[in-house]
Amino acid sequence: GANESNGDSIPASIPSVEHSDLDWAFERSVDDADEIEVGDVVTFEKTLSEDDVRAFAEVSGDTNRLHLDEEFAADTRFGERIVHGTLVSGLISAALARLPGLTVYLSQDLEFSGPVGIGDRVSARVEVVEALGNAQYRLETTIRNETEDATVIDGEAVVLIDELPE
Amino acid sequence: GANESNGDSIPASIPSVEHSDLDWAFERSVDDADEIEVGDVVTFEKTLSEDDVRAFAEVSGDTNRLHLDEEFAADTRFGERIVHGTLVSGLISAALARLPGLTVYLSQDLEFSGPVGIGDRVSARVEVVEALGNAQYRLETTIRNETEDATVIDGEAVVLIDELPE
Repeated sequence: GANESNGDSIPASIPSVEHSDLDWAFERSVDDADEIEVGDVVTFEKTLSEDDVRAFAEVSGDTNRLHLDEEFAADTRFGERIVHGTLVSGLISAALARLPGLTVYLSQDLEFSGPVGIGDRVSARVEVVEALGNAQYRLETTIRNETEDATVIDGEAVVLIDELPE
Repeated sequence: GANESNGDSIPASIPSVEHSDLDWAFERSVDDADEIEVGDVVTFEKTLSEDDVRAFAEVSGDTNRLHLDEEFAADTRFGERIVHGTLVSGLISAALARLPGLTVYLSQDLEFSGPVGIGDRVSARVEVVEALGNAQYRLETTIRNETEDATVIDGEAVVLIDELPE
């Protein structure tokens, strides 16, 4: 249902593209791993909630008070709590995972250029910019804060696309 | 308590260094933001559990079956489920957050060189390699899979260290 908010509620065997009932949006320009080429794009979008930030603090161990403590954050340069940069960057991984085939992460460069507030809507866009051979691809990876209409992460990824298991 | 496993159980106002009752380990070579210099090191270590992986899949939107579906993963090059690379990289952010002062992430480069299995113990090590001026520092960032005795992420971060709010 649209209000699933417990990690346990994600059935292990459901492929990502069937998660259309969550508050997530997803598009891709190519559906066959053999046809991936320069210019192909995948986008993935979700809201980053209070619960998401608290869960990420625990699973990663990043309990920086800038993310968790409103009173503390009010006196920082941001003036309010912000979402962990690494959690925001997770939407790049979510977009890469939606390339056709089995995506394996080889590298990622990130530049954090702006904050994401608690509850902001965020979109990731990954675009194939180079076919490196041996089923490896270089992609431009961008995250926009749709709520604030601003780019918040720029970067580049290299992935390996394996065939899906039978 | 040592068995806290719900994000809601982390009080918002507790600084990270007080989380000594969790299954986390942390050390740092410097305790004052004004004294950070080249060679200073912070380490942070935790186990990455099944619950962590499922929670990260939901908060990031990365439902790649390689992380969630044992049967699927068995037929991949890894032969078993692995932890999301971005979740593993979150331990770098957890280590950076434990520098004295308020750490603000400016950039991060990551190379993924090996897998982390579900339940593996993982350690992050960040070392200041350059003082860039204006309270900015460049750090080498490494993640080791302690269970497998292997380096799994190499990279570099740039952070800004603000003074803590009064």
